[in-house]
Amino acid sequence: MPACPSARTAAPSILHANVTVGPDGHLLFAGADTVELAKRYGTPLMLLDEGRVRERCRTYREAMADHLPEGSLPLYASKALSFREIYRIVEDEGLGVDVVSPGEIATAASAGFPLERAFFHGNNKTDADIRYAMDEGVGTFVVDNLEELRAVEAEAARRGRTQRILLRITPGIDPHTHVKITTGTVDSKFGSAIETGAALAIAREAIAQPHIELCGFHCHVGSQIASAEPFLEAARIMVAFAAEVKDALGFETRELNLGGGFGVRYTEADPEVNIAANIRELGACLADACAEAGLRPPQVFLEPGRSIVADAGMTLYTVGSVKEIPGFRNYVSIDGGMTDNPRYTLYQSEYTVVLANRADEPAEFACTVGGRCCESGDLIGEGLAIARPWRGDLLAVLVTGAYNYSMASNYNRICRPPIVIIRDGEARLGVRRETFDDLLACDC
Amino acid sequence: MPACPSARTAAPSILHANVTVGPDGHLLFAGADTVELAKRYGTPLMLLDEGRVRERCRTYREAMADHLPEGSLPLYASKALSFREIYRIVEDEGLGVDVVSPGEIATAASAGFPLERAFFHGNNKTDADIRYAMDEGVGTFVVDNLEELRAVEAEAARRGRTQRILLRITPGIDPHTHVKITTGTVDSKFGSAIETGAALAIAREAIAQPHIELCGFHCHVGSQIASAEPFLEAARIMVAFAAEVKDALGFETRELNLGGGFGVRYTEADPEVNIAANIRELGACLADACAEAGLRPPQVFLEPGRSIVADAGMTLYTVGSVKEIPGFRNYVSIDGGMTDNPRYTLYQSEYTVVLANRADEPAEFACTVGGRCCESGDLIGEGLAIARPWRGDLLAVLVTGAYNYSMASNYNRICRPPIVIIRDGEARLGVRRETFDDLLACDC
Repeated sequence: MPACPSARTAAPSILHANVTVGPDGHLLFAGADTVELAKRYGTPLMLLDEGRVRERCRTYREAMADHLPEGSLPLYASKALSFREIYRIVEDEGLGVDVVSPGEIATAASAGFPLERAFFHGNNKTDADIRYAMDEGVGTFVVDNLEELRAVEAEAARRGRTQRILLRITPGIDPHTHVKITTGTVDSKFGSAIETGAALAIAREAIAQPHIELCGFHCHVGSQIASAEPFLEAARIMVAFAAEVKDALGFETRELNLGGGFGVRYTEADPEVNIAANIRELGACLADACAEAGLRPPQVFLEPGRSIVADAGMTLYTVGSVKEIPGFRNYVSIDGGMTDNPRYTLYQSEYTVVLANRADEPAEFACTVGGRCCESGDLIGEGLAIARPWRGDLLAVLVTGAYNYSMASNYNRICRPPIVIIRDGEARLGVRRETFDDLLACDC
Repeated sequence: MPACPSARTAAPSILHANVTVGPDGHLLFAGADTVELAKRYGTPLMLLDEGRVRERCRTYREAMADHLPEGSLPLYASKALSFREIYRIVEDEGLGVDVVSPGEIATAASAGFPLERAFFHGNNKTDADIRYAMDEGVGTFVVDNLEELRAVEAEAARRGRTQRILLRITPGIDPHTHVKITTGTVDSKFGSAIETGAALAIAREAIAQPHIELCGFHCHVGSQIASAEPFLEAARIMVAFAAEVKDALGFETRELNLGGGFGVRYTEADPEVNIAANIRELGACLADACAEAGLRPPQVFLEPGRSIVADAGMTLYTVGSVKEIPGFRNYVSIDGGMTDNPRYTLYQSEYTVVLANRADEPAEFACTVGGRCCESGDLIGEGLAIARPWRGDLLAVLVTGAYNYSMASNYNRICRPPIVIIRDGEARLGVRRETFDDLLACDC
């Protein structure tokens, strides 16, 4: 099929500015030729556009510096994509981090990340986790529940030191996102609800602990939120709660962590979220709410994860078989799938898919893209349209930087792919490909 | 709360014979004290009852020897649980294996499994996979599609040898199981459908290849099937197809692989499947169908995975927090979750849960059990009832031998648990616990 230069001219980029098509019809990512990258590193292959990660970090950092009280800072929610080099990049951009496990703390530590800028999350920190986080000097615990509060107090007392904490509060907001990534409602495994009185009770107990320094409160409304509104609502509720705490307990909230996370554009149907404008709105809303409540505006933390790394990522696969089933549908099988991207299987998350070695051909082949796992549910997407693929062609799935590598498994004993970082057109390994030796490392 | 010996007398085992309660109220698994095991190995901890695995292997092997043509053999579907030692156990019991990736082949090879008894599955075998499987001497390829057939022929030709194959056929049966584990319908990423003529076409092409020895056909109806009926229906359809192939192409089907898989009992609501009786029914049905079609009865392979290992497995967790939210529900948080058992998150699969250190107390605390991941969807189950737990208690999730460890991930950078094998009351490590060094092994 001939190339279609007019289509290229009409659409110089696909979905995001870092996805373009070269003169030979090859898909380019961050200016690098995906066909060349696949040849050099093999497939499946995950790519990360470092420039885009840095740009997003700066968007948050600058907007927060401009519109929120002094000391406000974005914390990269590293569960979205956690490997050693990403901590170096966000550290270099001046961000803090949100970590959720000893493994994330260990990874950040191994990158030399200054852990006093780390906030340790999670609904179930074990006693061993608490010890490890204190050993490593994690700056702030985001304490989820009473049992944890007591365990942190006990461990800090044992060490004769004081531990900074925030308390995780559930504001009772439904952000109308997927139920599995909604976290702000009262009916949640996370935090203490304002509505039930649990939030005030845990604040009272925290203030009474001699080895705990309560700095403020944290809430997280949900993920993949397109508008500022749920954040504004959360901010108003949290300020009202801070006023209630001040009245009832005489405690002044110095820090407010509003969690994540702004949505990203996975398909043409998704909006492009204006992060800076949303933060400006948030700043105005907070200032008003604090003035009205007679509170000194607290330092604000936000925890972007997905919106830092998602559209900085792309995954490349090799096509294996193309099955046309008359009266049903066409199946395109690739050499990865739910093992490196379980999000369609888990949440029916939609992706944009492009035939990377013939990206200039019309996307007229309707298909379901299936992974290589021996499981019918192993699909990357249904109702997709790409140029007609053949065995050996290269398929690109866009916007895979968040919750793809981090959720990857060895199901079917499939090795996890490498992450290749692209900066200024140069590629380097961020994570190497797993080998059989890695698979067998723990087997006795 | 006092122990309740009368309840113990009334229910000497919980769900399966290998789950009992000791005189001190501790849950016993395969006769071993779960509280002692958790102390020795830490939590989360996966247990595997080797005696139960062997018993199930024998049930299949003996029933197939008794009721199916000579040479019939069960093949352990190792995707259900794949680590080195399991291949040694099933080899010792005289089974073959079903492998789905180079990683499973490498694991079986590292265990010394005789790979001529391996059947290599998958809807997308890459050229590299095909080369590797031939290097390792895999006995039989279960060829899924035309592209693969041609790639296997080309590689066998290059080596100047002949490769045994079966062809994967979709019989067009809906076994009324979960859509994600239904694989026998025409609308499937797997195999070639009889209904569309694709099956006959690929059989014709396979027979014509000079370096391929077509031995017969494979189908797989689905997983977690309670009755013999879907297998009988599959057998009748496959025999009719074999007759069609004989008429049209003069080819005699010597081997018929009917795939998996009989269901297992996850909760009291699930039936106990009588595997031997189902195989006897299958034998009678096949004999009748072959007699009617004028075919010599072929050797039969079955591919049990889940029903070999599921109820031979149990996972132990430590309780972290217990959150009672008035008007909503109670949340019990554990130190594992979707990272070691994603089946509730993926399929809403139900499990039986017991408070292991006080298994003799009445299970009157209604709760949702949540994992430790920073994700609302990270749940092990909802609407469960256990004895009232406290931080530090031990929670057992039963019947976790299949598709738990094999689907485990490092999401949230959580280390995967070890597998401890219990045989004759003695415990030994099958897989050691992952460490931070393992997590960082691939990071540059």
